[in-house]
Amino acid sequence: MAYYEERQGREEPRAPDDQAVSFPPEGRKRVVIEEVRPAVECGSHPAKAIAGDPRTVEARVFADGHDRVRAVLCYRRAPAPYERASPGGHPKDRAFPERARREHQSGNAAESTATAALSQEWEERPMKPLGNDYYRGTFIPDQVGRYEVKVRGWIDRFATWQSGLGKKVDAGVDVTVELLTGGNLAAEAAEAAEAAATARDGEAAEDADRLAELSRIMLDTSLPEPARVDVARSTELERLVEAYLPRRFVSEYAPAVPVWADPPRARFSAWYEMFPRSTATDRLRHGTFHDTIELLPYVRRIGFDVLYLPPIHPIGRTKRKGRNNALIPAPDDPGSPWAIGSDEGGHTSVHPELGTIEDFDALVAAAREEGLEIALDIAFQCSPDHPWVKEHPEWFRARPDGTIQFAENPPKKYEDIYPLDFETEHWRELWSALRDVFLFWMDHGVRTFRVDNPHTKAFSFWEWCVGELRARDPEVVLLAEAFTRPAVKYRLGKLGFSQGYTYFAWRPTAHEMRAYVEELTTPPVVDIFRPNFWPNTPDILHEILQNGGRGAFIARLVLAATLSSNYGIYGPAFELMEHAPREPGSEEYLNSEKYEIRFWDRDAPYSLSRLIATVNAARNAHPALQRTDNVRFHNVDNDALLCYSKVSNDLQDVVLVVVTFDYRNEQMGWVEFSPAAVGLPHALPFVVRDLLTGEDFEWGDYWNFVKLDPYDRPAHILHLRRD
Amino acid sequence: MAYYEERQGREEPRAPDDQAVSFPPEGRKRVVIEEVRPAVECGSHPAKAIAGDPRTVEARVFADGHDRVRAVLCYRRAPAPYERASPGGHPKDRAFPERARREHQSGNAAESTATAALSQEWEERPMKPLGNDYYRGTFIPDQVGRYEVKVRGWIDRFATWQSGLGKKVDAGVDVTVELLTGGNLAAEAAEAAEAAATARDGEAAEDADRLAELSRIMLDTSLPEPARVDVARSTELERLVEAYLPRRFVSEYAPAVPVWADPPRARFSAWYEMFPRSTATDRLRHGTFHDTIELLPYVRRIGFDVLYLPPIHPIGRTKRKGRNNALIPAPDDPGSPWAIGSDEGGHTSVHPELGTIEDFDALVAAAREEGLEIALDIAFQCSPDHPWVKEHPEWFRARPDGTIQFAENPPKKYEDIYPLDFETEHWRELWSALRDVFLFWMDHGVRTFRVDNPHTKAFSFWEWCVGELRARDPEVVLLAEAFTRPAVKYRLGKLGFSQGYTYFAWRPTAHEMRAYVEELTTPPVVDIFRPNFWPNTPDILHEILQNGGRGAFIARLVLAATLSSNYGIYGPAFELMEHAPREPGSEEYLNSEKYEIRFWDRDAPYSLSRLIATVNAARNAHPALQRTDNVRFHNVDNDALLCYSKVSNDLQDVVLVVVTFDYRNEQMGWVEFSPAAVGLPHALPFVVRDLLTGEDFEWGDYWNFVKLDPYDRPAHILHLRRD
Repeated sequence: MAYYEERQGREEPRAPDDQAVSFPPEGRKRVVIEEVRPAVECGSHPAKAIAGDPRTVEARVFADGHDRVRAVLCYRRAPAPYERASPGGHPKDRAFPERARREHQSGNAAESTATAALSQEWEERPMKPLGNDYYRGTFIPDQVGRYEVKVRGWIDRFATWQSGLGKKVDAGVDVTVELLTGGNLAAEAAEAAEAAATARDGEAAEDADRLAELSRIMLDTSLPEPARVDVARSTELERLVEAYLPRRFVSEYAPAVPVWADPPRARFSAWYEMFPRSTATDRLRHGTFHDTIELLPYVRRIGFDVLYLPPIHPIGRTKRKGRNNALIPAPDDPGSPWAIGSDEGGHTSVHPELGTIEDFDALVAAAREEGLEIALDIAFQCSPDHPWVKEHPEWFRARPDGTIQFAENPPKKYEDIYPLDFETEHWRELWSALRDVFLFWMDHGVRTFRVDNPHTKAFSFWEWCVGELRARDPEVVLLAEAFTRPAVKYRLGKLGFSQGYTYFAWRPTAHEMRAYVEELTTPPVVDIFRPNFWPNTPDILHEILQNGGRGAFIARLVLAATLSSNYGIYGPAFELMEHAPREPGSEEYLNSEKYEIRFWDRDAPYSLSRLIATVNAARNAHPALQRTDNVRFHNVDNDALLCYSKVSNDLQDVVLVVVTFDYRNEQMGWVEFSPAAVGLPHALPFVVRDLLTGEDFEWGDYWNFVKLDPYDRPAHILHLRRD
Repeated sequence: MAYYEERQGREEPRAPDDQAVSFPPEGRKRVVIEEVRPAVECGSHPAKAIAGDPRTVEARVFADGHDRVRAVLCYRRAPAPYERASPGGHPKDRAFPERARREHQSGNAAESTATAALSQEWEERPMKPLGNDYYRGTFIPDQVGRYEVKVRGWIDRFATWQSGLGKKVDAGVDVTVELLTGGNLAAEAAEAAEAAATARDGEAAEDADRLAELSRIMLDTSLPEPARVDVARSTELERLVEAYLPRRFVSEYAPAVPVWADPPRARFSAWYEMFPRSTATDRLRHGTFHDTIELLPYVRRIGFDVLYLPPIHPIGRTKRKGRNNALIPAPDDPGSPWAIGSDEGGHTSVHPELGTIEDFDALVAAAREEGLEIALDIAFQCSPDHPWVKEHPEWFRARPDGTIQFAENPPKKYEDIYPLDFETEHWRELWSALRDVFLFWMDHGVRTFRVDNPHTKAFSFWEWCVGELRARDPEVVLLAEAFTRPAVKYRLGKLGFSQGYTYFAWRPTAHEMRAYVEELTTPPVVDIFRPNFWPNTPDILHEILQNGGRGAFIARLVLAATLSSNYGIYGPAFELMEHAPREPGSEEYLNSEKYEIRFWDRDAPYSLSRLIATVNAARNAHPALQRTDNVRFHNVDNDALLCYSKVSNDLQDVVLVVVTFDYRNEQMGWVEFSPAAVGLPHALPFVVRDLLTGEDFEWGDYWNFVKLDPYDRPAHILHLRRD
């Protein structure tokens, strides 16, 4: 007991074994804030948002005891390294959905969010309880760029008091003292309003007077208690006190959580991939940028807004691959555009047979005229003939025999490709050169890039490079072609890639597709990764398309285009239903454009172009289809069918999709859907119009019958009609 | 294009708009480390561990490309604020399970972990891949106290090369160059071994020579290739190179993740709650500490190791509650021990009728003789007569009428209790005084505390207080009596409470119980919260016990004692099957000891004491039952039955439990259990012995029949026999 007795004499409380006690600076902050979403890896990477769209913030906020808690989210534009350059980008990205902002404000806040984004001040938005101590709020990042988010919480002294008073009054308990407490709270708020009045407008002055008056009433014991109670329980008192009562002991979640707001086209885009060398209108010659310009109206007419070109650079000759990936090419074989570099140049040069750099500039300009983005393929690998191999051998890995290490995936060898060595001593120079490839094409007006195999380059490079590009122009959009393991794909999203390729093509059943899309649209994935769904690519001709026939092409197109607001197809192979594999069991195309020039009869009567145009028109006309995270699945009593709905932010636009996964047989079933299930009050029965056929169907509540047929109607895209 | 051209002349790579580029210090670290478990709130709170037990660490570790990755966990004893005092505690806590350590070392490490804990050096343990880029490793904190954990990862150059070589050889591909590469790797390792040899023992010297030799063989093109390949693929080469080859570009997860190692009794304990004032052996007088000493052998005989006493302090008279919580007490009513404080003293005084502080010291000493811990109840609330009310009115909340705010849960009032005001200006003095209450009783030999309603006191206080107590003695064990929302309960675990009360009593069905226990034994909860299961407490007489009869008492006891390695009962009410509620629908006991002194006939023939002794004996004899996180549920084709198994760390001890949740009817069903399912190779059929009855049953694989009867056999506790 020695220790304790020895302590008795003291005045100062002391710690054990005579060291001074360290108290926290303020021990009276009683509110705890946990699990702030969207903090990505403890805030070490920015979470994704879209300029102009409401961004949800959630947290667990609670205190000891039974007092009422209040929580707010705070946000501001952040001075990030990315902000060095002034934002460029396209006017269309600047026009943010006015509706979203109106809703948001009416729902949440009086002040315009515009002021928020421009100032460095912290703007507040209320957070509402979701139950189990979770709170949710939203804010709108007005501009493309970096934001910071915090969550604050404190004990709501007034609400705690008012609810207690209410319960006591209802229970007939004496509230004499409670009224005095309330009177004092109102007086405290009145003082604060007084102070605000001197600083601000006259409104605060009026409020101060009114608060003082309400305070007097509650404190005046000579007045009849019922009258004082009425004041105490009034919503007027609540509104005024909550507006001015000083917050005490406010807890704050630190450090601030970074959020990156991408341009709206990162959320909603339809990609069309096309080999420019296959654009000649006759089969006798190599297509050019000018031939490509001629096809822009076609691409636009069928509804796409991004035209993505495989690499347009000079192609190596050493170890060049022949048709169908033959090791020995024929003399006239053009080689693979991904074998980049020859004595005619490398990643910042144009393949002469396509035209000149000026021709490319003309293509970019013409595309913009058509409202099309040109997306380039950035493939950081070199053919043995690439200028860098001579100029910078130190950027490649040397083998013990002095040769340069070619690409391989043992035992497979790819001797026409030299990978770059990200462990080179000269990594800084290498990184700068690679960044400059992007900057070169940005100087030529390109703002959208599809990056080839980013997962085979160092993550640290991408983190740095994305920052450099956003410093140059925050409106850059990057699509990661990373067909690899989930952790790797999601890492690239965290590092700033705006979109990523997915496993969509390898989800052959309704059950697998639903599970996958639910993973993509749920935290943590939804905060870091934006899917871009492709039914086919030059590398992926899935067995479904090989054997599924027209129904499979249509069903997979509808799935990609309506499940994901970002999608793309590799054409004209897709619309012309190219489906022969190089060999059985392969996902490679027979006579793949990767190794030869193809001639395409785009006007073929069997082309799906008209259907594709219809699907894209539906996407463009319906805000519900312009987001991915709003997808909601509905039960069908037939495993071969998948049903889901999407609703626009303002609930005005509702689209319901039903797709078959059986490409052989007719399938029918009952779909469980009620407008109430998607938060819609709606007169029953209601009418849904099929956006693919224009037919109307009358639907009742809960269970509705559908019949799909791969040969006739593989899918419904149904719009809930309001008229 | 101005920007790009203007850049051409430069040698130094430059950033856009002419600012210097900031590169990371080392851009060649290609390995990424994410999702390190157990990082609690990004490492802001220590995760829980037990001194002497293996602690699991997991992380997601991956790199770009296809190279092989290696991951290790690093740990060390941390110099925490808690470390100011020298550890005290009981010898039994120092005796760590030798077996666990042996296993661990054989499995994991050559060096003794003892050295690790004593030094501040980082010790390494390997992490093994779990698939999908997850890695897992374990370490053993040898001592009670704070540890730090890191994860490191790097590209395994050797493994990458060796597996590539293997594939090429198997595919008949030429490996001339690969052998040179391997020879160079071996030579590099030989150099490193050489260097180590000068520093360390001669073993490294031998290894260096051997490595040099193997290197020469692989490099010597005059030798037959098969021989060189054999060396290249040999495990000897693998072992030697992996031991010495320098790691390049090592990634580290920072900051270090804190872990707190509690004493083993925080993992495994059986609590017996008893009111000392009801220990008199005749019904005529108030029980004393000396009467309590007389009962220690009983408590020990029935197998408990913690004797928990409700508050032992002077009891207030003002607004004292009468029997059955009557507002007006009879003159001889003793009042509630939780109404703490009178003119006879407060939280550091002893209720005179129980005896003196010396008598209490005698009780603690006698308990230790019996191998029992005395646990005290720390209830930070005051009766209006508590000395603090006069000495420190500033520690309480004043009402506008000058009176002190009593406890209330509107509209209910508890006028016999004054809560402390954690928003007082004098919070530092208040905190110190509360801490000193713990320290006072620690000076009297108490190391185990049950804290009453910690969730109604400020979290910041607890975080500070736990640190202060651990600075005094890291072996302190705190049980949180927090019956509140999950976030709040778990927060207290994060702040350092060793154990917490749970919702066990309110999980009446097998399904609910399984779901709840799975939540408690899964991350993140399992890393921050240790459950302590109580079938009853003086506040909780669940309807199951009111109406379920003897079968319910036995079933709930077996569930609590075998699902959770920490459990307790409130006796003798439990063993004597006290089951009358104060009124229908209430969970309060009729004639509750909270408000009156009770006389208990502990020798009553119907007492469950013998059964309780049997259950506790099974717990003490079987390591499998001494952990909670090893529980594994098994299917039963009858929803009224719950079946689960537990296996000891060394797989030597396997216990299988089956319990009925139907207290009216016999229930039978088929249990799905196979020794293989719990990782056991086992001869089939096998024998299980019921530790409750001593009966043996022969079981076959997969499906086995069980029949439980609330009147005869409400539960099986089955031990897999090895003989």
